[in-house]
Amino acid sequence: MTPTITAFERSPDGGKGLARDTRVRWALEEVGQPYEVRLVSFQAMKEPAHLALHPFGQIPTYEHGDLALFETGSIVLHIAEHHAGLLPRDANARARAISWMFAAVNTVEPPILELATARILESDKPWTRERLPLVMDRIRDRLKQLSAHLDDADWLDGTFSAGDLMMVSVLLRLRASGILDEFPGLSAYIARGEARPAYKRAFEAQLAVNTR
Amino acid sequence: MTPTITAFERSPDGGKGLARDTRVRWALEEVGQPYEVRLVSFQAMKEPAHLALHPFGQIPTYEHGDLALFETGSIVLHIAEHHAGLLPRDANARARAISWMFAAVNTVEPPILELATARILESDKPWTRERLPLVMDRIRDRLKQLSAHLDDADWLDGTFSAGDLMMVSVLLRLRASGILDEFPGLSAYIARGEARPAYKRAFEAQLAVNTR
Repeated sequence: MTPTITAFERSPDGGKGLARDTRVRWALEEVGQPYEVRLVSFQAMKEPAHLALHPFGQIPTYEHGDLALFETGSIVLHIAEHHAGLLPRDANARARAISWMFAAVNTVEPPILELATARILESDKPWTRERLPLVMDRIRDRLKQLSAHLDDADWLDGTFSAGDLMMVSVLLRLRASGILDEFPGLSAYIARGEARPAYKRAFEAQLAVNTR
Repeated sequence: MTPTITAFERSPDGGKGLARDTRVRWALEEVGQPYEVRLVSFQAMKEPAHLALHPFGQIPTYEHGDLALFETGSIVLHIAEHHAGLLPRDANARARAISWMFAAVNTVEPPILELATARILESDKPWTRERLPLVMDRIRDRLKQLSAHLDDADWLDGTFSAGDLMMVSVLLRLRASGILDEFPGLSAYIARGEARPAYKRAFEAQLAVNTR
């Protein structure tokens, strides 16, 4: 039986790989698990059938037999727990990799989401031009700390893990901002993620949907 | 051997239980695991010894033997994985509970963090008064969806789990805003969390630190 995920019928980013289904596709590709994709329109995402799968009306979701999950982080963790390749076998290293998954979504991503909100939902507001540099500085604070931790290592904690998959995915949202140019170590880290064959396959798969 | 967590020497909230160590204390109390607390000053949080434990210079951290973890979500998950009481035994229900943990920190908490940022870091900015209602509306959108999912159930997915522990903790940050009064179902849900003996013990323990 093959799991089924949901993705945007038409991603707002036009196929840059920033929609969250790319994170799940990447995890599935890393572990070699084939999957089906069901595309959903923005209208369908707000309807009862989809809300029963995802209470917040978003993508991706994950269905496998009797199990239905939402939230990218938990879907990636579920995949990592059931296949080799995304979490270390050593119990302590495994727990640390999960720390990095949460750090990606709860410490690094929030100011990045704030930037997206300012740019998209508040783009027409009179304060946005003056406010954006403050938001950028809050992102910079996090990137400095992350960069200091990474130092000259390839990955956040030894070998590549679901923690790196989540962190690279979160950082990719910053590419258009130009802020990554200030952090060559993080840029190289992101490039290592993108160079993984599994990432490339995931990226191509989501691109194919958005360039039909 | 007893695990050691870190907490603010003096919490910015003065003991309202909103600092993230309360979430970890609550989890430890739910499973009946005694713990030690090491208090850290704001200055010590930015020094190398603490940064080696927490790359982003925050609290809480968790040390147990050779293992050192950071990020509240992952610490709570680690506790839940190693003791009975915070995750269902059924594999599918367990995965769904973890979905709710991620939903708490990556879907519900980001707009709440944005409100805190607006109120604290941008309190002196000329746009904040006009901008706050927009931030509140984004929180409202999430609360409506969460409230619709919860309906008249006691907990998010059957029995109380680490997902509820994280969600109630995130929602508690909204108490001072008054917005919770618009959502009686969620207010009752939070009250059920606060009524748990384990929560009360966790709250009292953090309060004792902040009222020395």
